[in-house]
Amino acid sequence: MIIVKSVNKAQQILGREKAKRKTIGLVPTMGALHQGHLSLIRRACKDNDLAVVSIFVNPAQFGPKEDFKKYPRSLKKDISLCRKEGVDFIFYPDAKDMYPQNYRTFVRVEGLSDLLCAKSRPGHFNGVATVVTKLFNIINPDIAYFGQKDAQQAIIIKKMAEDLNMPLEIKVLPTVREKDGLAMSSRNIYLNANQRREAVVLYKALKKAKELIAHGKKNSREIIKMISVMIRQKKTAKIDYISIVDLESLKPVKIIKNKVLVVLAVRFGKTRLIDNIIVSQ
Amino acid sequence: MIIVKSVNKAQQILGREKAKRKTIGLVPTMGALHQGHLSLIRRACKDNDLAVVSIFVNPAQFGPKEDFKKYPRSLKKDISLCRKEGVDFIFYPDAKDMYPQNYRTFVRVEGLSDLLCAKSRPGHFNGVATVVTKLFNIINPDIAYFGQKDAQQAIIIKKMAEDLNMPLEIKVLPTVREKDGLAMSSRNIYLNANQRREAVVLYKALKKAKELIAHGKKNSREIIKMISVMIRQKKTAKIDYISIVDLESLKPVKIIKNKVLVVLAVRFGKTRLIDNIIVSQ
Repeated sequence: MIIVKSVNKAQQILGREKAKRKTIGLVPTMGALHQGHLSLIRRACKDNDLAVVSIFVNPAQFGPKEDFKKYPRSLKKDISLCRKEGVDFIFYPDAKDMYPQNYRTFVRVEGLSDLLCAKSRPGHFNGVATVVTKLFNIINPDIAYFGQKDAQQAIIIKKMAEDLNMPLEIKVLPTVREKDGLAMSSRNIYLNANQRREAVVLYKALKKAKELIAHGKKNSREIIKMISVMIRQKKTAKIDYISIVDLESLKPVKIIKNKVLVVLAVRFGKTRLIDNIIVSQ
Repeated sequence: MIIVKSVNKAQQILGREKAKRKTIGLVPTMGALHQGHLSLIRRACKDNDLAVVSIFVNPAQFGPKEDFKKYPRSLKKDISLCRKEGVDFIFYPDAKDMYPQNYRTFVRVEGLSDLLCAKSRPGHFNGVATVVTKLFNIINPDIAYFGQKDAQQAIIIKKMAEDLNMPLEIKVLPTVREKDGLAMSSRNIYLNANQRREAVVLYKALKKAKELIAHGKKNSREIIKMISVMIRQKKTAKIDYISIVDLESLKPVKIIKNKVLVVLAVRFGKTRLIDNIIVSQ
């Protein structure tokens, strides 16, 4: 396994591999790897000649009052997990190598980057789109892997890659969950025991929404109301948003006809968790 | 010479060539080719295994009141000029293939895209940065060629390629001029005989600025004042801006110490011409 910090070196080494017609799979991460990441990494190892994992806590996607500084970092453990999975290349650049002084260029997916999570995290998705564009240019992957847990991110990146004609495929793999249903997230470690217990309500609420839709309920407002009640019963939960949206435009769907995304963000104490489920009637 | 309209086909064909380790040189143009373009094309043919010319009048870089509709188009003549120069591949996509319905993604080089020409052409450089990113992803060139005549564009594209780690080289070649000094431009054909005669003042003014600086003049305001007077003597000329700026930040330089860019935009009737000169003391 090769471990590289320098942007230029990573680009050179992988450029040479690409010239030998090796296929490259990229799993972009912010480290603190969990089973969700590992499912992407396993798939990248299986699909490609070379599996690359990038580990970079991207300052451009954190707001000034967010958890950039305390975001969990565990490089040693991440490296050992990657080694165990058979990863070929770890890229873990410095922020000042990724965003040197006088850095000026940003990628923006208009419309999609202003909805849902963007309302409480303005600028977040521009930071994501920009760093992912940079990683794609540095690594030059044939396939890049993202988790369905970050549904809005996955939709934005797919749209960006399509719009900008990026020569690669975006694969979005299912959310990996704890036994009790809580979606795996590096931020789950912020939860205290009580919050952790109560956070299980998120997946329960999503499954409830799915059930209601399966039984013919079409009115999004009613469904949202019912699952809001479920979540509000938990004392430490504070709803940021619950929405039922179109899978492409991310715009709210009033009357459910086709496939929709039920998506939510809820705070437990200071920890903001997101989850979602795709439902077709 | 291969001529391709489809974005996907162009990407496929050139992807195959790239996999054979052919080097690719790209000259992005809006067509209406003149000697300035041809100097870039000749260099692309010389430097690379494959020379690609893209011809696309990019709607995203024209303002609503600008000359998108009447911008000169001469595809047949352009193709014959490319053939004569030994170009290998012409890519001339449709606007609806480049910007399908629901297109959402834009690239922006902050700061540099708000100065100089951007003041009378807001949004112009976002359109340029976006289309150039798309062309780079479709064509995958090793080297892309731009003219010094569009100095601000060249600086923005260099900065964008550097910031986003695009795996290619940007080459900027000198402005090609008519015998009397007027910079070659597809828009020169808009000029009537009188405007065309008077437009020669632009290069004369730039040379005057160079001379003043060479003779030790350091105060930009004084230099700008002197060459403004020269230009204002022409009855059909209306100055948009004249500025002496830093070559990287494009910010005005008050006292000239190192290399600077003397840059101007002047309208002759409805036709807005730009020109520039790099001067070192």
